[in-house]
Amino acid sequence: MCFIDLNSDLGESFGAYKIGMDEQVVPHITSANVACGFHAGDPMVMKHTVELCKKYNVGIGAHPGYLDLQGFGRRNMKISNEEAEADIIYQVGALKAFCESAGVALHHVKPHGALYNMAGKDYDLAMAICRGIRAVDPDLKILALSGSCMIRAAEEIGLDAVSEVFADRAYQADGSLVPRTQPGSMITDEEEAIARVVRMAKTGAVTAIDGTEVSLCADSVCVHGDGEKALMFVVKIREALKNAGVEVRRF
Amino acid sequence: MCFIDLNSDLGESFGAYKIGMDEQVVPHITSANVACGFHAGDPMVMKHTVELCKKYNVGIGAHPGYLDLQGFGRRNMKISNEEAEADIIYQVGALKAFCESAGVALHHVKPHGALYNMAGKDYDLAMAICRGIRAVDPDLKILALSGSCMIRAAEEIGLDAVSEVFADRAYQADGSLVPRTQPGSMITDEEEAIARVVRMAKTGAVTAIDGTEVSLCADSVCVHGDGEKALMFVVKIREALKNAGVEVRRF
Amino acid sequence: MCFIDLNSDLGESFGAYKIGMDEQVVPHITSANVACGFHAGDPMVMKHTVELCKKYNVGIGAHPGYLDLQGFGRRNMKISNEEAEADIIYQVGALKAFCESAGVALHHVKPHGALYNMAGKDYDLAMAICRGIRAVDPDLKILALSGSCMIRAAEEIGLDAVSEVFADRAYQADGSLVPRTQPGSMITDEEEAIARVVRMAKTGAVTAIDGTEVSLCADSVCVHGDGEKALMFVVKIREALKNAGVEVRRF
Amino acid sequence: MCFIDLNSDLGESFGAYKIGMDEQVVPHITSANVACGFHAGDPMVMKHTVELCKKYNVGIGAHPGYLDLQGFGRRNMKISNEEAEADIIYQVGALKAFCESAGVALHHVKPHGALYNMAGKDYDLAMAICRGIRAVDPDLKILALSGSCMIRAAEEIGLDAVSEVFADRAYQADGSLVPRTQPGSMITDEEEAIARVVRMAKTGAVTAIDGTEVSLCADSVCVHGDGEKALMFVVKIREALKNAGVEVRRF
Repeated sequence: MCFIDLNSDLGESFGAYKIGMDEQVVPHITSANVACGFHAGDPMVMKHTVELCKKYNVGIGAHPGYLDLQGFGRRNMKISNEEAEADIIYQVGALKAFCESAGVALHHVKPHGALYNMAGKDYDLAMAICRGIRAVDPDLKILALSGSCMIRAAEEIGLDAVSEVFADRAYQADGSLVPRTQPGSMITDEEEAIARVVRMAKTGAVTAIDGTEVSLCADSVCVHGDGEKALMFVVKIREALKNAGVEVRRF
Repeated sequence: MCFIDLNSDLGESFGAYKIGMDEQVVPHITSANVACGFHAGDPMVMKHTVELCKKYNVGIGAHPGYLDLQGFGRRNMKISNEEAEADIIYQVGALKAFCESAGVALHHVKPHGALYNMAGKDYDLAMAICRGIRAVDPDLKILALSGSCMIRAAEEIGLDAVSEVFADRAYQADGSLVPRTQPGSMITDEEEAIARVVRMAKTGAVTAIDGTEVSLCADSVCVHGDGEKALMFVVKIREALKNAGVEVRRF
Repeated sequence: MCFIDLNSDLGESFGAYKIGMDEQVVPHITSANVACGFHAGDPMVMKHTVELCKKYNVGIGAHPGYLDLQGFGRRNMKISNEEAEADIIYQVGALKAFCESAGVALHHVKPHGALYNMAGKDYDLAMAICRGIRAVDPDLKILALSGSCMIRAAEEIGLDAVSEVFADRAYQADGSLVPRTQPGSMITDEEEAIARVVRMAKTGAVTAIDGTEVSLCADSVCVHGDGEKALMFVVKIREALKNAGVEVRRF
Repeated sequence: MCFIDLNSDLGESFGAYKIGMDEQVVPHITSANVACGFHAGDPMVMKHTVELCKKYNVGIGAHPGYLDLQGFGRRNMKISNEEAEADIIYQVGALKAFCESAGVALHHVKPHGALYNMAGKDYDLAMAICRGIRAVDPDLKILALSGSCMIRAAEEIGLDAVSEVFADRAYQADGSLVPRTQPGSMITDEEEAIARVVRMAKTGAVTAIDGTEVSLCADSVCVHGDGEKALMFVVKIREALKNAGVEVRRF
């Protein structure tokens, strides 16, 4: 039997500002990455999101990012590795407190946005993040791009690493994502995207943009809940995985 | 044998900005209240401050405040009780993670500045704060103004309440502090201030500004480390307490 | 001939966060209050909003608020009058630069949310705000609650004061708004709300919640663009005013 | 007769946090770069700093930086050029309002920290900054690293460019600064630093780290006021320039 996890970023609202359809997407996923107040989220949003995840028995992950609310954590910042480690401890600790207060365990950590991307390619930054996670709780899993520096650093430091794949992104021959700025970076055809995920889940293989066959580890696939179309896609991909004999379950 | 705790606010620096003489004051105190990033402090400062406190075996407390860095948490804000509870969970959780990462237990919580003052008089706000603390860890002690709503709420909710007194502030007949805006609110004579603390520690009594004898609970006295003069005062008060047979030890 | 201005709060988005249907509401209003980055808005949003207002020939106002993005400027804060004055100069100056850069004049200033409400009742705070506005440009008009301290302070200091009325709020016998926490504070019937505005515009009179006839000054009426229903209401009120012979034009 | 300007970064305090000895350094300089609230400074600090500069007849410049108070604007951030332009308009506009309110003209703009360094090497970013400055007021001068992209962009766009040199930094053969991470990047000997500035002011020449003679434009030299030693250095360099027949005056 083969299986995969469906993860989504939740709790990205802030004060009067709403982003995402958390209530609608949460019944369809198995893991949630909850923003921790640096790039999105606030204490009230975190509290409600943790309670929502608990209700649907979804694995709760911390989703720490750069201290950049205005840029939604998507702008590259050159912070020191010592700062990265401390920022991780702070954000993961804050979310962990909401989990404990709700009587549910914190399940994993997935860095957000620019931090996710930069740490995927910068081993020293990835190690700093892993040190921060381990400092809070060495049993926390880390969710990161399949084949990235983050996975390597996690294994080096003794954290459980969970590999993430993307339904809507093209891959390069070395297993990395085609940068969004390049043509063909996005898989826009829904059927194709779903077929790719099913294949990644069943065989660990994907066809790169240059036609090469790439092998990767597909523990979890990232899905979105930021619109009706995104929501429909989650339902479809779940159905397709089930029909293909792939169990959708929390990593 | 009678005893008292000496507490001080530490970790109030932020980024390139330095406040306080933490390294100098920490050897002389028994408890520290560490800022949690809302009104002061940042993840790097919190990490270093927790390590410093651990080195000197000082009881580490979270010092949560209003989200008001520009006002240093000293400006009254009308946040909802639900917001207050969530803000407390967030800040206490963040500091707790730094404690766990340093292998030391979080010892207590003391609200900061305007939040301390407002919660001292607003029972519902005090209850919200206490709910937040209990949600993170019901064994955490709360340090608050002797005789205030915070002490009452903590007892109501089942948290250990520790009563704080001030060396440099005058009291009113009902045991509350004379507001800073009124004449005579500050005890400016060092000898008098020390004598008052010794008396409060030994007998639980202080003379109010109108001459009335007030009884209060003096578990901990607040001292400052924000200048040479403040630092000297800590040394002097410690010496005076010792000479008077009052042991200075962590609550 | 009698006339009234229709004003609406625009530019309240922030980074990835969107609030309001600015593009849809702007063709129907005559004045816009543009958030200045403290409680909402950011430099990119301000730039686009000013350009949008210019395109539709809408009077551009600065909409300064408390430095409280998390609370959307709706939480009361106790800042000093000196701070209020400086905060106003900063925010109004920032928006004025976007206006100058777009080749259009800054038209007015309307304090936002909690600052609007507090300054409506606190004459010293109102004076501080007016000093800040005058310091930037003594020709700026100030838009504030009809009959409030803000209007009085503006007149005292020599600023043009423009009186605002609300379509959806009940009034008290003294001309102040019924607090939202009291029953009957909101006028939920659309027809009634429109009829009240038409009457205020034509006669300067409104029936208070206790039945008393109140006279007030109705230079501008506040409308919202934060949903389809709100948008429809703007169209309806404009039509009703026109039919009643009240010209809708910028103050 | 030859002359040079002495500029210093002022107004870097924030709320309860103090940085710099502004009152002590301002009598010795001819231009000040005033932080605008993004990386340092706040409205109260900006107001007081503008008044201080006016009192000593010092040229007031805006000192805009990245929105990164925690990193003091010294951390590289990848913001878009459109964001950079809007951030400049916002910050320069805010400071300009304080100048107008004090009845003094805004004199120049000098980007801060990481923004200064990145724009020195990134022509497109430099152009975006220059567009922002020109949008606020085309008569504003821009103060930037001698020989950098900023100078080139300013000239291209029609802004007056003023070239800055550093007393305490070594230069490379191409006129750029030796990165701080390389050995020999700092000129630690005070006499040597002063002699280099005098020579740059008089002849437009400096000896690069590899012995090459470099010619550069020395309109203004950057001095610091963040300590007693820095302050003494300002006095010494002023004296040395005077003795060498170089007039110290505002550009």
